Parts: sequence; structure tokens; C-alpha cells
Amino acid sequence: METIRTIAEMRRWVKEKAVQQREIGFVPTMGYLHEGHLSLVDLAKKENHEVVMSIFVNPLQFGPQEDYNTYPRDFDRDSRLAKETGVDVIFAPSVEEMYPYYPRQLTTVQVSELTDGLCGASRPGHFTGVATVVCKLLNIIQPQRAYFGQKDYQQVQVVKRMVKDLNIPVVIRTAPTKREADGLAMSSRNTYLSARERKDALCLYESLLVCSELYEKGEREASRLKEAMRKVIAGRPSAAIDYIEICDAETLQPVTQITGPSVAALAVKIGRTRLIDNMILGGNLNCS
Amino acid sequence: METIRTIAEMRRWVKEKAVQQREIGFVPTMGYLHEGHLSLVDLAKKENHEVVMSIFVNPLQFGPQEDYNTYPRDFDRDSRLAKETGVDVIFAPSVEEMYPYYPRQLTTVQVSELTDGLCGASRPGHFTGVATVVCKLLNIIQPQRAYFGQKDYQQVQVVKRMVKDLNIPVVIRTAPTKREADGLAMSSRNTYLSARERKDALCLYESLLVCSELYEKGEREASRLKEAMRKVIAGRPSAAIDYIEICDAETLQPVTQITGPSVAALAVKIGRTRLIDNMILGGNLNCS
Repeated sequence: METIRTIAEMRRWVKEKAVQQREIGFVPTMGYLHEGHLSLVDLAKKENHEVVMSIFVNPLQFGPQEDYNTYPRDFDRDSRLAKETGVDVIFAPSVEEMYPYYPRQLTTVQVSELTDGLCGASRPGHFTGVATVVCKLLNIIQPQRAYFGQKDYQQVQVVKRMVKDLNIPVVIRTAPTKREADGLAMSSRNTYLSARERKDALCLYESLLVCSELYEKGEREASRLKEAMRKVIAGRPSAAIDYIEICDAETLQPVTQITGPSVAALAVKIGRTRLIDNMILGGNLNCS
Repeated sequence: METIRTIAEMRRWVKEKAVQQREIGFVPTMGYLHEGHLSLVDLAKKENHEVVMSIFVNPLQFGPQEDYNTYPRDFDRDSRLAKETGVDVIFAPSVEEMYPYYPRQLTTVQVSELTDGLCGASRPGHFTGVATVVCKLLNIIQPQRAYFGQKDYQQVQVVKRMVKDLNIPVVIRTAPTKREADGLAMSSRNTYLSARERKDALCLYESLLVCSELYEKGEREASRLKEAMRKVIAGRPSAAIDYIEICDAETLQPVTQITGPSVAALAVKIGRTRLIDNMILGGNLNCS
């Protein structure tokens, strides 16, 4: 496995593979890898000749009060895990390499409507940062396929829409959320949790299970589903709800009555750690 | 010469050329071709194996009060001129092909700072429309080089910056403004001018000549240069100044004293026709 730090070197590698007509699968990450990331690599390995993983904590997608500086980083561990899983190249550029004028970045990619609610409302500018860095990485690595986890459901919809709207020549592939044995969605941010908080953090998944059970029993009123979810969270001392929402699975617009594929999504602060999770209701959107 | 109307067909052609390692030069236009466009084709022919010209009047870059509907169109004439000049493929998609959800386009590319002044101030949203369509076209055609005329000086700077900031794998090439025998910058919009207006329209070039002469004589005070330009325009009955500005040639920020490469730029309404022109002061930026 190779580690590449500069855009110029990455381009040389990409060009070489293009001449050889080797297809590239790309897994963008912010590092601190967990099984969720590695399941994306597994899928990418099955579908491509080469797998490139980027490890880049993208400052553009963090708000000024957010955890850019404290976001967990462990390149040696990531490198070992990536190698074991069969990654061919890690692309790990510096902030200066990706944003030579940082913190100025005159050009941004903006996706409207899809980013109005959910994490877009709580984290202004977040998805502009995501769309911009994904656009840059896709232009550098020029993969045939790029892989995203469904844990970041809104991110997946934003990236898919950007790719369609800007005609970026890549196929976006997704894989289901990986969970710990008890159901907690895997996230690099779980490392922030104290033992006590780790227990409370389960409330996100539990509330989704409650929602899903009610849905299966026939409940279609979003307000009732959300209220049931809210009650689960309210029972946990360290938990503070950021949002609980039921949205159309594609447009991400909030629904009052569930009539088609929808997603229950929530963000909850567990102590100082903000966690997100989601579940599809009515319709199998897990594979795409 | 081939004419391609769909993105899917364009992608097939591009893929074929990529496999053959044929380099593509791309000349984006809104049609109604003149010698300015054709000089870009000439340059593209010298530097590439294949030349693709797009002809697409991009609704996204027109304001609601602007001339999208009346913008001159003559595909047969364009097609003949393109063929004569050696274009290999004309890409002429419909609005529906480029913007399937038109007038909704959720994803846009925004370039800040460079677009604050000049045409960016007079035409809000114009450069977002330009950057978005150029980004889309570059993703569809994937050229090695793309060609832009210096008549649209601010557009060139915006596109160059977008390409750099988003790491789009293309080289932006420019060619000098083509002018009529009397000096009027060639523009598809010149066709709007009545015989009387055509005479008045020369004031843009004349004012730039006056500016340039004063500059050559040593004048470095932007206010004096602009005042001299203003006087030239004021002498023409059908002319109304939109802006006259002296800017840093790269950042496009207005300067008060000329200390480095600068550009004198202006937009003037001649009757109902808005025309632009520009000239570099102090430094040869004509070739790049």
C-alpha cells in the first residue's frame, strides 16, 4: 500500500491507472477508521481494480464552535487498518495542499433545498464544506465509483445530487450503517464518550427502533412517531436533542404523514458529543 | 464534423477518445459565432488532437430582465463556420438536457470576491451561472484544455480560479479580444445595434485607447484615468455607463494607484444593448 501526500503525485498515479484502464473505487474518510469505513473498502474492492482511500479532516465542513481541532486522528492505526483491508493507496494531503489559501477558499459548491433541514440547519455551511471537498477529491482521484456510508444519510443525498447536477463522471455507491453489538452507530466521534455517556448514547438507536416498531404496526403520523422518539431520548440524563425529524427519503423535506419512502433521522448531544443516526421507513433504500 | 445533442452520447465519444489517448481541446460558446470564437478554435486545433465546441445559451447566467430569450441564435450558420474552422464535434444540448429540473438547479458553483465588482455587481448571479455551466461542461467533455476569450476578462479570472480551487483537471487557455476594423470588440450582441448605435458603440474602445495613452504617458491615478474614459462615453448620445473601473489584473479589486498589472474594464449600455470591453495596463497578460 502506498501513501500519497500531494495532489501532483496523486494525479500521476491516477493517470497511470487511466492508461492501463484500471477502474478506481474511492472511499473518502476523515480517518480514525472503524468498521463502517472498512465495509466501504470491502465493497469498493469487489467492484474496482484499485481502491483509493482519502484521509483528510476537512476544516471547511466544521463550524467555528465545532470539533475540528479535537477530531480524533491516528494515522498509523488508520494506515494499518487500510492496508489489512486491501486499500491500494491512501491519499492524505495536508490542509495547505487542499486549500493553498486557507482559510480563504473563493470557490465553493453549494447544494440548496436538501441542506435546509436536519444537520444543514444545525450546522450552517457544513454541507457546502462537504460538497466542496468531495468535488475536489473526485476531480483529483477521478474514480469510477465513490463510496459513502448511510449513517450520514443527508450527506449521501447531497453528494448524489451534486454529482447529478454537475455531471461529475462517477457512480455514488452506499453501504448500510455499521453498528456496535448493542446497536450504537459506529462513528469516529464515539471515542469522545465517557463510559456513562456511552450507555446514554444508545438512546439514538433505541428511539429509531421504537419509531420503526410503531411504523411497522401501522403508525403513519410523523408527529406521533417523533413524540415516541423524543420520550426515549428524554429518559437519558446526558442527552439533549438537536433534532428529531421524519423526512421524505429523497427530497429530505419533513413529512406530516408517511405516504412513501421516508427516513427517521436525529441528532442528539450526549454531553458535549453530537451524534447522529437514521433509519429508513417503508422501502428498502439500503442498497444503491 | 459531428453534432451531438445528448450528454450520454457526448460521454461515449469522450470515452472513445480517452482510450485512444487523443487530447481534447474545448471551446465553450453560446453560439452566433464570430472571429473571436473562431480564433479560439484555431488555437485549440494547434494544441489538441480533437476540438469540441459547445453551443449552449445558458439560461442560468442570464438575469430575469436580461436578453436570454432574444439572444441571437443561428445554428446552421454556426455549424458551417465551425466546420470550416476545423471543429470536430459540436456539443449542442437542449436546456432540458443540461438542466433536467429547470428552472430548479439545486447545485451551483460559487466564486466569491472575484465576482463582487464589475459585471458581478451589475449582473447578480451571472457568474454563478457561468461557473456552474462551465463546471458541468468540463465534467461532460473532460478536455485537456479549455479556451476562453479575453473580451470576457472577469469570466476568464472566475473560470481560472474555479479550476484551481476545485482541482478540475484542465488547463485554461485564453486568446486576445478580436476586434472589428474600427476597434469594436466582437460580440454576438453587436447584432442588436442599429446603424446609429453601431457608431456610438465605438466609444468603449476609444475610451480604452484614451486610458491606455494616458497610462503610457505616466498617469497612474485611477480616478484620472476613469474620468478621461467617462468623458469619451459622455460624448455619445445613446451611451449610458454601467461601470468604468481600474482593477488589479488578478484579484479584480479596484485600485486607486496603479502599481502592478491592472485592467481597465467597462460596461456601457448602447441603447438597450449592454456591451463590455477591457484592456490590460502595464504588463503583458494577453498570452497565457
